[in-house]
Amino acid sequence: MTAFNFEILAQDGKARRGRLTTAHGPIDTPAFMPVGTAATVKAMFPETVAATGAQIILGNTYHLMLRPGPERIAELGGTRKFMNWPGPILTDSGGFQVMSLAKLRKMTEDGVTFQSHIDGSKHHLSPERSIQIQHALDATITMAFDECTPFPAEKKEVAESMRMSMRWARRSKDAYVVRPGYGLFGIVQGGVHPDLRAESIEALKTVGFDGYAIGGLAVGEGQELMFATLDHTLPQMAVDKPRYLMGVGKPFDIVGAVLRGVDMFDCVLPTRSGRTAQAFTRYGVLNMKNARHASDPRPIDETVDCPASRNYSRAYLHHLFRCDEMLGPMLLTWHNIAFYQQMMKEMRDAIADDSLVDYAMQFATDQRRGDEDAPNDVGDDSAA
Amino acid sequence: MTAFNFEILAQDGKARRGRLTTAHGPIDTPAFMPVGTAATVKAMFPETVAATGAQIILGNTYHLMLRPGPERIAELGGTRKFMNWPGPILTDSGGFQVMSLAKLRKMTEDGVTFQSHIDGSKHHLSPERSIQIQHALDATITMAFDECTPFPAEKKEVAESMRMSMRWARRSKDAYVVRPGYGLFGIVQGGVHPDLRAESIEALKTVGFDGYAIGGLAVGEGQELMFATLDHTLPQMAVDKPRYLMGVGKPFDIVGAVLRGVDMFDCVLPTRSGRTAQAFTRYGVLNMKNARHASDPRPIDETVDCPASRNYSRAYLHHLFRCDEMLGPMLLTWHNIAFYQQMMKEMRDAIADDSLVDYAMQFATDQRRGDEDAPNDVGDDSAA
Repeated sequence: MTAFNFEILAQDGKARRGRLTTAHGPIDTPAFMPVGTAATVKAMFPETVAATGAQIILGNTYHLMLRPGPERIAELGGTRKFMNWPGPILTDSGGFQVMSLAKLRKMTEDGVTFQSHIDGSKHHLSPERSIQIQHALDATITMAFDECTPFPAEKKEVAESMRMSMRWARRSKDAYVVRPGYGLFGIVQGGVHPDLRAESIEALKTVGFDGYAIGGLAVGEGQELMFATLDHTLPQMAVDKPRYLMGVGKPFDIVGAVLRGVDMFDCVLPTRSGRTAQAFTRYGVLNMKNARHASDPRPIDETVDCPASRNYSRAYLHHLFRCDEMLGPMLLTWHNIAFYQQMMKEMRDAIADDSLVDYAMQFATDQRRGDEDAPNDVGDDSAA
Repeated sequence: MTAFNFEILAQDGKARRGRLTTAHGPIDTPAFMPVGTAATVKAMFPETVAATGAQIILGNTYHLMLRPGPERIAELGGTRKFMNWPGPILTDSGGFQVMSLAKLRKMTEDGVTFQSHIDGSKHHLSPERSIQIQHALDATITMAFDECTPFPAEKKEVAESMRMSMRWARRSKDAYVVRPGYGLFGIVQGGVHPDLRAESIEALKTVGFDGYAIGGLAVGEGQELMFATLDHTLPQMAVDKPRYLMGVGKPFDIVGAVLRGVDMFDCVLPTRSGRTAQAFTRYGVLNMKNARHASDPRPIDETVDCPASRNYSRAYLHHLFRCDEMLGPMLLTWHNIAFYQQMMKEMRDAIADDSLVDYAMQFATDQRRGDEDAPNDVGDDSAA
């Protein structure tokens, strides 16, 4: 049996090049996890996800508990078998989606009762139930159940929310069934307050987890406050465990967070942008619906080693999106995930090479350069 | 330069196993051409289309003339380069879609003026313009411009429509630029009337084409009348040229038409059905939205040699369609095209083996058998 184990292979400043070993395969870090909400990375075949270099994907407990239900997935052999993804999978705890999607929420110390956004049916999530569902889903990495504190919020509310999440973290650990090669991650909360983040880190260390996530960021606080929070939070976190920044983010956010010592990321941005005609490229973001691409014979981004990036003209992508053809989102999602994976690989290589700062500076320059023949629509922090 | 050439390799009764050689690759017949209306086989990567065994696809002149326009496609190197499909492509003439999709049509001896169904813009199609557009699209096989006679219609109308199509066939031939490895097909009209079909065949022979299509069928006349029309039409058609039955059809229609001597087919059924959750299988048609599939761990059809057919459970397909996930149409379209291509290959092998009648009888038995544990939803002629 493979043990769940994290090894740091190289360091460059605060950045770490590592390898996480799991029951379902290794994960080279820093790693980006494409989001497969309902047991599918939208518009992607699992073989194609793997071909981009992705080694782990994320599934959403909230969506899967509603459809098709954790018991159904367990009967069918777990999420990985269900969706034909042989590699590791991380599931979130459901807490974040309950806050952002569900209706008529009622929160108590025990957990949260809510109505499904799909059919209004009533459900309950608690640390125990979330961990049980993630077990049924056969998650390689299980996340502790927490409350994602809203932003902005009064410090008092942030503190209370964080402390409840810490009590829930203990209950999550107690409910979790240890299995070789599987892991449980705790989630640091505390908003943008250094003292609360420190308190949260200490509380989680006392419980003890296989990895630590940073939650409650990328919720509207902006890149500057996010980086400031990472700057004071990361140095206090365990050095020998993987560090996962949840829900981040734009390419620049990821590069900045890797420089600060983050190992794992997930975000819907490459997949969602692929469905709305936004292409991430070496030289910035393109909107394929823009008329300037209508007769452009150049590929989306020939610097990315992916058929979707190289074998189709911008004119063709423009045509597909203009005609609402499914192949548009299929190709652009594929390209965007390949772009993200290539960026992660380049950063892993740069860390091993002690050249991550040079890489980051070149990346910033390239991103700001824009197309050869036209200005770039989108700057560093203005998002797709 | 490869010549456009049709060779008959084997015969079994009236059925023919052949090979059509073109400038862009060979086509083994009997062949099924997936439909790629707007320069994309909906929900399919071109590599995946090729991997199913498809050697030629169809493009729609009507759609491509409206978006992105023939001049744009010509600038970008033709339809094949535009859509990254290296093999041969056949384009229809646009006549059928003008009748079924366009608004405010006005037909004269010269051609037809109409408004785009997309933006109301005014356009004109004539034999000369249709051939010119198909040239700009770089079609490997160009279709003569014809009127698809409505069904039902008075015999007098059918005759007049057919005779105009025959005059348009002559004008199409005159407008066509001969290129090595490229071909022009004429279209037999005349509805379900043997004498009119015979007159049409003679008129086309006088002009002379590289292949002959049978038009005006699969428009509501039903399988019995369609087969009766094939029974009297096919024996009069040139033996040494490919015979293409346009817009057909359901698996049973295709098997019956191959038995009667048809070499080429196209139909939206496998692709359209794939988007509406209908799966063609060895044992009949399945509706993946049906609740009986919700916990079925069996693959769609393990007798089909295709990852989409074998690597995903019916329960997973049911889940994808229930959640409106794009991967549902992606997998089911892939499976359906693979099912059609495997059926064509099995028929080619059976003809070479002199066993097509046995194959057809077994195919019919299997199709009627239905699932092991549940009756088949759909019989032989009741369509997906």
